[in-house]
Amino acid sequence: MARNGYRVAVVGATGAVGTTMVRVLEERNFPVSDLKLLASSRSVGKELTFRGDKVAVEELTEKSFEGVDVALFSAGASVSRQFAPIAARSGCVVVDNSSAFRMDPQTPLVVPEVNPHAVRGHQGIIANPNCSTIQMVVALKPIQDAAGIKRIVVTTFQAVSGTGMKAIEELRLQVEALVRGEPLPRQVYPHQIAFNCLPHIGSFLDSGYTEEEMKMVNETRKIFEDPDIQVCATTVRVPVYYGHSESVAVETRKPLDVKEAVALLKRADGVQVVDEPLAARYPMPLDAAGRDETFVGRIRKDISVENGLVLWIVADNIRKGAATNAVQIAELLVREKLL
Amino acid sequence: MARNGYRVAVVGATGAVGTTMVRVLEERNFPVSDLKLLASSRSVGKELTFRGDKVAVEELTEKSFEGVDVALFSAGASVSRQFAPIAARSGCVVVDNSSAFRMDPQTPLVVPEVNPHAVRGHQGIIANPNCSTIQMVVALKPIQDAAGIKRIVVTTFQAVSGTGMKAIEELRLQVEALVRGEPLPRQVYPHQIAFNCLPHIGSFLDSGYTEEEMKMVNETRKIFEDPDIQVCATTVRVPVYYGHSESVAVETRKPLDVKEAVALLKRADGVQVVDEPLAARYPMPLDAAGRDETFVGRIRKDISVENGLVLWIVADNIRKGAATNAVQIAELLVREKLL
Repeated sequence: MARNGYRVAVVGATGAVGTTMVRVLEERNFPVSDLKLLASSRSVGKELTFRGDKVAVEELTEKSFEGVDVALFSAGASVSRQFAPIAARSGCVVVDNSSAFRMDPQTPLVVPEVNPHAVRGHQGIIANPNCSTIQMVVALKPIQDAAGIKRIVVTTFQAVSGTGMKAIEELRLQVEALVRGEPLPRQVYPHQIAFNCLPHIGSFLDSGYTEEEMKMVNETRKIFEDPDIQVCATTVRVPVYYGHSESVAVETRKPLDVKEAVALLKRADGVQVVDEPLAARYPMPLDAAGRDETFVGRIRKDISVENGLVLWIVADNIRKGAATNAVQIAELLVREKLL
Repeated sequence: MARNGYRVAVVGATGAVGTTMVRVLEERNFPVSDLKLLASSRSVGKELTFRGDKVAVEELTEKSFEGVDVALFSAGASVSRQFAPIAARSGCVVVDNSSAFRMDPQTPLVVPEVNPHAVRGHQGIIANPNCSTIQMVVALKPIQDAAGIKRIVVTTFQAVSGTGMKAIEELRLQVEALVRGEPLPRQVYPHQIAFNCLPHIGSFLDSGYTEEEMKMVNETRKIFEDPDIQVCATTVRVPVYYGHSESVAVETRKPLDVKEAVALLKRADGVQVVDEPLAARYPMPLDAAGRDETFVGRIRKDISVENGLVLWIVADNIRKGAATNAVQIAELLVREKLL
């Protein structure tokens, strides 16, 4: 650590996740001595505010990482594939929010509440998991520890912010056009998203699953270091701005009763239990927006199987699902003296 | 059959389902000689159009069913509990869209594509299943027949029209208020529904499940006449006007490969397969609205279990989920000479 903090770069600084990374660095008081905001040449000239100061966006180049201690990447997989290795070679530790390195055996895939030890083996790049995976493993961690997870059947309700700024704008413009009786703009999604549900996130594979669905399968196994966990995912885009919701049926190896599961979840790191159904209290994306916790409710026995629980898991996909998790990884690197 | 058709009553004629029942009777050219529109005294004075004629709404009383051959009820369980037995005693056959008699062992619970034979034993009242159950059993019928269903894990994405006219209005008013930056009206749901998801449909039971979730369990078993089918349901309200979507993982007793399942679904009564993911073609509530078919897509192997399939099932909850199914039951009664 040079001077009174670390030299931090945010790559993709003007995106939905990048702008939130800057805000979270400030909110969590991460020890930043210098902040470098990097983006494509199109964003040069823009400014973001950090601790009351305007910081200009600079163009991302191969030389951007000289003197940088840690770089938080959120500019898509192709930018990460090109620039993360360059940043790592220049001595900077990369926390990468894209899918580029997540399944690379050399790259730790880390959720600080779940597998913090995994950062230790890093070789310059640490991957941030997919948003839908993060909130699910945070909620399932105490269940995996207590009873072992055999199978997960998950269906997601994913907010448009997960697609990025343009998708947030598309939902807003579609709703406004509908209210005014005007023709609907449509550029980001293949179908109208306002007042609709699209069972389509990421590209489709030959198996009929989407990339997003297989991320939930493969990343869950890697984070839990348990290749025997069976996962079936259906991922769906819904007309919500912020906050992914997940309906999760989890079958455990050993019995785990609901009361015990609730007690474990209440003690779990990063989890907030919201489960008073008779008072109409359960997690909702509108309440999770802007928060860093993973909210868990509707906790009940799965009546269709011997050892099973059903959960409703909600988190802010841009914060815990991306920006906050990345900053937490940087904090973990500081604590582990790996920066 | 008197004269050139049947004397038909619609109870709850001014509601979201009732008005659609009248439209569907006309569209499907049901042999109606007289149409009686019944509702509470608050609706007296209103008129609906049937085959070009205005029909006045009359107040529902104990004498309303004299001379009526078939009455389609959709005015809530308490109205059905009070008036359906009176109607049946006056010689009229009741098709009841409420939950009042669905689980009564004397009352057939009928989806014409699935268990048409069940109407034969009727004793004056035939129940229309819950909207979420209807579309699921239509899609699962060929799978049950071919391979036997062991377990269903279902998560629903339910439109506000399922709650009724006032809920449709609430979503519309909330969206308009948000666009205009005005305070949000909220009367129907316990939380904002616009841009949110509520894992709460029907009242909560001590088990942590909702009434809606248990309807899917119990009605599925009754319709398939198979008490061994295990069902775990999570039912969620989403900001969609018309069309329920369902993410369904079904475990079968015998193996059934995806190609065979698709072939069976393509031939199944009332089903339309929409499953060309590479062309971004899959069922969506926006496309299902106004249609009578049950749309099935995203058909794939459940990779988390030995014998399993995953499906995405969408139908118009007001039409196939309620009004159309009720009119189809009336048509079945005509075919079976039970009217």
